[in-house]
Order: sequence, then C-alpha cells, then structure tokens
Amino acid sequence: MEIELLVVPEWVITVNSENQVMQHYAVAVDDSRILDILPIEEAEKCYRPRKTVVLPQHALLPGFINAHTHAAMSLLKGLADDLPLMDWLQNHIWPAEARWADAEFVHDGTQLAIAEMIRSGTTCFNDMYFFPEATAQAVDEAGIRASIGLIVIDFPTAWGSGPDEYLKKGLELHDQLESKPLLTTMLAPHAPYTVSDEPLQKLLHLACELDIPIHMHVHETAFEVQQAQEQHGTRPLQRLQNLSLPDKHFLAVHMTQLTDGEIDQLAKKGTHVIHCPESNLKLASGFCPVAKLAAAGVNVALGTDGNASNNDLDMLGEMRTAALLGKAVANDASALNASEVLRMATINGAKALGLEKITGSLEIGKAADMIAVDLSVLETRPLYDPVSHLVYCANRNQVSHVWVAGKPLLAERKLTTLDESALLAKAATWQAKIGENA
Amino acid sequence: MEIELLVVPEWVITVNSENQVMQHYAVAVDDSRILDILPIEEAEKCYRPRKTVVLPQHALLPGFINAHTHAAMSLLKGLADDLPLMDWLQNHIWPAEARWADAEFVHDGTQLAIAEMIRSGTTCFNDMYFFPEATAQAVDEAGIRASIGLIVIDFPTAWGSGPDEYLKKGLELHDQLESKPLLTTMLAPHAPYTVSDEPLQKLLHLACELDIPIHMHVHETAFEVQQAQEQHGTRPLQRLQNLSLPDKHFLAVHMTQLTDGEIDQLAKKGTHVIHCPESNLKLASGFCPVAKLAAAGVNVALGTDGNASNNDLDMLGEMRTAALLGKAVANDASALNASEVLRMATINGAKALGLEKITGSLEIGKAADMIAVDLSVLETRPLYDPVSHLVYCANRNQVSHVWVAGKPLLAERKLTTLDESALLAKAATWQAKIGENA
Repeated sequence: MEIELLVVPEWVITVNSENQVMQHYAVAVDDSRILDILPIEEAEKCYRPRKTVVLPQHALLPGFINAHTHAAMSLLKGLADDLPLMDWLQNHIWPAEARWADAEFVHDGTQLAIAEMIRSGTTCFNDMYFFPEATAQAVDEAGIRASIGLIVIDFPTAWGSGPDEYLKKGLELHDQLESKPLLTTMLAPHAPYTVSDEPLQKLLHLACELDIPIHMHVHETAFEVQQAQEQHGTRPLQRLQNLSLPDKHFLAVHMTQLTDGEIDQLAKKGTHVIHCPESNLKLASGFCPVAKLAAAGVNVALGTDGNASNNDLDMLGEMRTAALLGKAVANDASALNASEVLRMATINGAKALGLEKITGSLEIGKAADMIAVDLSVLETRPLYDPVSHLVYCANRNQVSHVWVAGKPLLAERKLTTLDESALLAKAATWQAKIGENA
Repeated sequence: MEIELLVVPEWVITVNSENQVMQHYAVAVDDSRILDILPIEEAEKCYRPRKTVVLPQHALLPGFINAHTHAAMSLLKGLADDLPLMDWLQNHIWPAEARWADAEFVHDGTQLAIAEMIRSGTTCFNDMYFFPEATAQAVDEAGIRASIGLIVIDFPTAWGSGPDEYLKKGLELHDQLESKPLLTTMLAPHAPYTVSDEPLQKLLHLACELDIPIHMHVHETAFEVQQAQEQHGTRPLQRLQNLSLPDKHFLAVHMTQLTDGEIDQLAKKGTHVIHCPESNLKLASGFCPVAKLAAAGVNVALGTDGNASNNDLDMLGEMRTAALLGKAVANDASALNASEVLRMATINGAKALGLEKITGSLEIGKAADMIAVDLSVLETRPLYDPVSHLVYCANRNQVSHVWVAGKPLLAERKLTTLDESALLAKAATWQAKIGENA
C-alpha cells in the first residue's frame, strides 16, 4: 500500500494508556493521521512510503501541548525581570502592552513564539491574549495546532471596550475559525479578580452553547485569594463554584493555593488544572500541589505561561522543572516520575483542551502530531532509559523533526513554514521600538 | 605589541565588583592571562594579535565554576531516577559503584563529564569521588581547571581500606599535583554521617598543614539532621563546630536545613555554602534558604552535584533553577536576580575554591578562563538585557567558545582537547556493561 510517510526511529514513545515504549518500530502516516505502528520489518513489507525518515538514534513521541501561554508576549521577553508581581505588571508589562499591543504586535509576537515552540517540540498550544484574530492568523500561517482564547476582561483595552464587545468579537472569531481543522477556541475570562459575575455568567452560557471549554487563571497567588476573601467573603474558587463554572470543561491555570477540600471538589467535577511551574517560581506565586492533585485523580496538564514570565516556551525544560519541583513540594523523590510528567506535557494537555481523540499520543487513528528527539549527543549518553533522558537531560536543540497532522514544520532543525531570518528581523525592529521606550 | 589572542564580542560581561557589562569592548589575552579589556578601536591600535576571534552577537563572560560535583558518576546518568533517596543509594547507586567504580570507570566517566562541562561553559569544577588520581589525570589531559577532592569516608571501598589509607593516598596525590598549575586539591570528608570525629580531626590538621580547603556534604536532608540528633544529641553543623571545622576554608554543600542562628554562625566564620538546587529538588532533600544566606553575607556558590542526581552538569540550567527557585523559597520575585545568580556561578565559586585571585571574573591579570555565548538565536531575541537572557533563556548549545588559561577547549562548539567520537564509544561500552546488570 502506498502511503505518505514512514518514520523509522530508534524508540517510539507512545504515551498510550500503558506508556508503551517500542524499540525497532516504525510509524506509518497517511492523510494526516497515524495509520499504523508496527515492527520495522513488517512496515517495509506492508507499505510503500512516498517519503521515509530514518532516525536511528532518535525517540519519536507525541508533540508537546503547551496548555497555557500568551504567545505574543515573546516580544517582551526579558524586558523586566526580578521584580515583585505588582511592580512587574503595573510599572512594566501593562504600560508596555498599553503602548505596543496591537494586531501587528500580536501577529509578530505570536509568530516568534510559534517558531520557538516548534523548535522545542510543541505541536499545539492554548493561548490567551488580546487581538486573538491576529494570533489565529499566525497559527494558521505556521501550520501548528492551537486553541485560541477568546479573552474577556472587565476593563477596556486597545482590542475592545469591555466584556460585551470582547464576547461579540470572540463569537465572530469562533465562527470564522470553524473551517480551520487545526484551530479550536475557548472562552478565556482572564482571572477572578479581573472579571465580574455578570460577564462570567454570560460567557458560561456562551461556552455551553458553542460547546467549548473555559480557560482562566485561578488562585495564582496567596494575595489573590486573600484579597477576594476581603472583598467578596469567599475564596475565588468558591465564587466560581457558586456561578457553576468549574466543571470538566474548565481549565484552571496556576492553582498554587488549594485546600484538600478544593482538591476533592476539582476531582469530583473533572476540572483540569494547568500547572505552570517556571512562571510560578519566577513570580514567586507559590507551589502548586501537583502530586496531591494527581493522586486525587485531577487531570494536570503543563503550560509555560507567557515568555515575559518564564522566559522561554520550552516544554522539555518545563517537564524537567515540573518533575524536579514536584518531588520537593511533595517531599517524595518518587513523586512525579518521568513518565507521569511526559503525560502531563502531552495527553493530559490534549484532555484539558478537549482534543484527546485527535492528539496527545501516538496511537493509530490520531493525527500525526509527532516530534523526534536526537538522543545521540554526549549529554544524553550513556542511555539507560529514553524517557528519563527526555525529561531530565535532553534540551530543545535535540528536537530534530516536528510534524503537525503529518505535515513537517521542522526538518533536521530547519523551520519549514516560517522564515527564520524574517522573524529575527521583526524581533530586531520591535526590540528597537520597545527597548528605546522601556 | 604582539599578543596571543584578541576576542571581540558584542558584550563583555565582566562579573567584576561592579557587575560591569561593556559593549564594543575587546579582551586581549597573552601568556594565559587577561592583559587588557578596552574599546575595540583602541585594541586594534594597541595590539597585533596572532589570533583574533570576532563574535559579533555573543556575550563573553568568565567560565562557570561548578563548585560541587562527582564527575565520574556521568556513567550512571539516568540509571535510576524517581526513587526515594535511601532506595536510590542503597539499591542502585552504591551497588553500581561497588561493582563498577575502578580507576578506568573514574577516568572515563570524568572525561565524559568534562566534555559535557566544557560544552556548557564550565571552566573549573570542584570534584569529590573515589580514585581521585584518575579524576586528576582526566582533568590534566583535557586542560580544564579543577579542584580534586581527597575523599575520606569511614568505610572501605575499592579505592582504600579506610580513613588512614584515604588520607595517605590523598596526601600522595596532593604532592604529585603541586606541579600542575590548573589543578588544586581539597580534603573531602564525605558527610557528617559517614565520617567520625577522629578522621575529621586528622584531616583538619592536614588541611591546615597543606593550606587547602575542606569540602563536605552537610545538612543535605532533614533526615540527616534528625538522625544525628538522635545519635549524637547535636545537629551535624554543631558537631562540626565543636571540632572547629567550618571556617573560611570550609565548603558546606547542600545545607537545606538551617536555623537563623546557624546562618549567622556561617556568616561570622566566613564558611562557604555550595547550593545544588537541582539535586536537592530531584532527591526531595529540601530547600536551601539562599536569599537569607546571601542577605546574611554568606558566600553562596553553585554546583550541579553528580550526573546521577541532576541529570546534567549544565551551569546555565543550574543558574536558571537557582534564580527561579530562590524567588519562590524567599517568597519574593526580586530575590536572587540574574546578576546575583551569575556571580554565584562564577566569582563566588572562585572564592569558595580559594581561586578568586586567579579566576571567576574577567579582570586584567586574571587567567583567561572565558566563555562566549551566542545570543543571536530566535530563543534569545528580542534582547533587552544580555544578563537576563543568559540566566533565563540561553541554553548550553549557545556556548560557542571556551578558553581555560587562554587555551581554547571549545571552538565553534567543537571540542579541541577531547575526542568526541572516542568518548561516545566509551560511553556505549560502559552502557552495555552497566545496563546489562542494572
């Protein structure tokens, strides 16, 4: 049988329900999907691929799913570090956004972010930012998979006058994107402290109608929880529960402040928690109790957050930090093992995004969203366990190939859908403008 | 004037006492030392270099000093992860060492470690392992700078029968290495729970006589402290203080358990703390209160620990983890800023090793221990602050050049003193032997 593509790696790390790692297997791809996963000798007998990619020292695995980011903020990477959260936001990030964030900023920043994500093995991301139509355009041009957040916030911005206009524009964008197979949407109320009850009720109604999830920062810091208790007499999560919000179509991002009762409640409702360890550390927001959440049965996925508070979009690094930090927070070196963390970075993200039938693991019938990681370099030798090396010592430069829906986005570390020189030139132009006024 | 080498980078990050970052400056090197740091135009007028290295998008900075590692353990990288400390040690690491650790293992493992360190910008490391003569040989062959730990432990190993033999062999090695300008030594009692009072007193005497520092794991875990209190009625640090050990020539590694009184005492004595954030996380050992130590005036340097508990020897990554974690532990996003962490990875390490007059910063008269980091890639653009990018988003693959005492060890990312293919072949041989018996 003639097929589009056969990939022949050293290891196929499936991230299926048994975490199977297969050696000397090949992955057959046709019509954007995984057609077969079978021993190399059988593959050679059964299929006549139009293209064969032989990767004798590489692991092939599902592409990473970055479950929370603000892609456009790549243009603000490293502009203001080492500052307390409110100083950082009020005196640096918000003024820079007020001055610069327009459709062009969002398009260019998102393109740069997508290039960084592809080069570090991410095949799908979940975004939240203003001018989401510009984000969607950059995603569509690059051929990556993404869930576009339809942002809602109480106050006016360059993108709109307030919640009603945000919802209207968001709905329009949702309708426009229905024809794009790689693009989905979510309602994205910014945070409990920036969105009041009325817009939350409206957007819950809309999310049900459109059958899309809701993506929100919740319990990012102790300050947020304390302030809400002073102002509303309830913890933010309780307030959202009173509005019937957190259910199995709800992605609660950060969650560094959680009581045992709240963890049980999240598990019962099927709410997804998006863990952003590096951003939580960098902003000193607190420690998400990931091992406890996982033990309670909560689906925990992984996100980098935006480039301004990380300062990279590298899911290999984020897995490493999640695994290391998770052990220390749980006071148990066996907590968050390499396989669990790899699930958080792939299939758990797909579940959170409602895409687990389409992506997040290498299984027959799923989209061919795959990456290859070269484990032949000195830093990953000797090699006793490819999953350990992926999580604990491989780095982004070892990502050699990336496919989304069977289409190559990175081949031998070269971007195929984005022009690297053009991106660097755009970054330089923005740097000159923004840096001059910083 | 004719000189050996002129390096012309975009930024010279000096890590001098003012943390000066100079743009459009050149560094003149002759006879293994930094002869001058001056504006490019002046350098072109004053010097006729036999070699010029122009690095128009790079930062030039002092090489990293890895202040605590067990280099040879590179051969055990990823052999056993995600295990509780005592299971990891007793059922995996110690049996593997008992079976395999001989002079050849140590030489080959150290060579592989040195290759990894050079490729990630380390120019000096402080080691502790058995068969230190094999470590020293590998260091000497590679041309890197190192402090070789003369290990002392109560129990017999393949290297010796007990403390007296370890001290005798250590002394011999110390004498042999006196002719090697890049090699120094330290007494290296393993830990309070593995070395009893008598050998500690002997080695203190010897350290004074030889005028060399002492390097020891101290307060790595809460369990260690609790057990000592049960057995000796004192905390390990108190016991060491009773033996007059921790002074300004003492490097206390890990230190995750510290009272405010102990911090004051360390500051008063001038004792150095070696912080190993990634190993402490991975083994769930606890959190070192780095911001508090630094505020008290304690010199804190940075180490990766061995490859079996990290699982890399990458000081760029260790700086990032130290900065991120330091903020969260201090509950202050402005704690451990990028410049402070860069000092911990360079000049503070030099101070701990007693080498601050020789290395650790780019200053006239110091050895030319320098590295260049290419900041032109997508992941480090836009660029508002090169120090922020070094700490928060550059990775090891961006290290392009490494010099130790003016001699190139890495040029355009190629190792010049080590044979990469030969190292990979050795790693494969050890992998086959060790992996088969794991």
